[in-house]
Amino acid sequence: MRAVGDTLNTASVEFWFEFASTYSYLSAARIEDIATTAGVPVLWEPFLLGPIFAEQGWDDSPFNIYAAKGRYMWRDMERLCTKYCIPFTRPSRFPRNGLLAARIACLAKATSELWLPEFTRVVFQANLVFQANFAEDREIGDPAEIRSILDSLGQSGAQLVEQAQAPENKLRLREQSRRAKELGIFGAPSFVVGAELFWGNDRLEDALAWAGSRTGEARR
Amino acid sequence: MRAVGDTLNTASVEFWFEFASTYSYLSAARIEDIATTAGVPVLWEPFLLGPIFAEQGWDDSPFNIYAAKGRYMWRDMERLCTKYCIPFTRPSRFPRNGLLAARIACLAKATSELWLPEFTRVVFQANLVFQANFAEDREIGDPAEIRSILDSLGQSGAQLVEQAQAPENKLRLREQSRRAKELGIFGAPSFVVGAELFWGNDRLEDALAWAGSRTGEARR
Repeated sequence: MRAVGDTLNTASVEFWFEFASTYSYLSAARIEDIATTAGVPVLWEPFLLGPIFAEQGWDDSPFNIYAAKGRYMWRDMERLCTKYCIPFTRPSRFPRNGLLAARIACLAKATSELWLPEFTRVVFQANLVFQANFAEDREIGDPAEIRSILDSLGQSGAQLVEQAQAPENKLRLREQSRRAKELGIFGAPSFVVGAELFWGNDRLEDALAWAGSRTGEARR
Repeated sequence: MRAVGDTLNTASVEFWFEFASTYSYLSAARIEDIATTAGVPVLWEPFLLGPIFAEQGWDDSPFNIYAAKGRYMWRDMERLCTKYCIPFTRPSRFPRNGLLAARIACLAKATSELWLPEFTRVVFQANLVFQANFAEDREIGDPAEIRSILDSLGQSGAQLVEQAQAPENKLRLREQSRRAKELGIFGAPSFVVGAELFWGNDRLEDALAWAGSRTGEARR
């Protein structure tokens, strides 16, 4: 018989994502179904890769800096989205600025808002899936766009966008990005299970299996 | 009823590997079993990443240049080797010089030598698996080491090492590396099926599935 509170002893997976990361979109679309099947709780952890890339001397996405790698990534995304049955259209601009979306995600996380996963998926889709009702793929860096997404989720878009830009919330995102670096994260998506770091959408299943095999051990 | 020569219509997978690439070791160890099961022929394609990395401004392995990525890679290799039941010991020096081994592999390829896959696996193991009968992990850049490996495979080590360093064979490896670049290859291992490029040991299964689904079409 399972005692009440058993799930507290299940190792969880921290899902570290960045809105400008195409491979993060794949994991955001896939993680809930797979984690639910595996019985592993997921913690959604927004952060910014920009400061980490800057320390490596990059002022742009490595997919823009290294042309062959970039060409490959777009074709790889097409194939993977077909394989996973996930909609995808190459955006007209890459990378888009995910700062405001990440701040909204931090605000949701800090206030335990249940709409964080859905908000995350909708922002990725706005950036990476051509919407029939829009003339172009959407500019997720635009506050009006983020407000509209929040409103469509039944939230108070205008109010949340304002709160997200308050000093204490800006600090939350800086703290997240600092913690990401401390955890050894150098790309997105990344998954953290206890002391183990897994990098890339390709490691999602391995990270969940690792967490599953640690169920019953104390959480870190 | 299958006609004689049907296998000529099976799409093959080109397996592009570099001896200094740790993830190439994983694919070299795994590819034959999986490809045999899938009924897909494998073409072993040695090349050098050095010139491609140099064009990106790197004079060392990115795993040495980017410390967080390097720390991650060694832990990832440990976990993956455990998962695949492949022996692994972190080498005392990384990367080792794979130039001579790549030249030997080119010579084997040019002369249709059937020992190319086995030679490749043994060289990777010499570099990445601690041998109980050696005081240290082995220096695959050393001609004596390569000679000894060839001799252990029943080949004439001294003769092959000499032939491998003849001008026409040096040219073969340069030509391989030029072709790799032309194919859009920017890392190792890479897999090429017709016009499709797959990067990384994580894409081995996808590349074989792609080739399998094209069986019966004309080979490129």
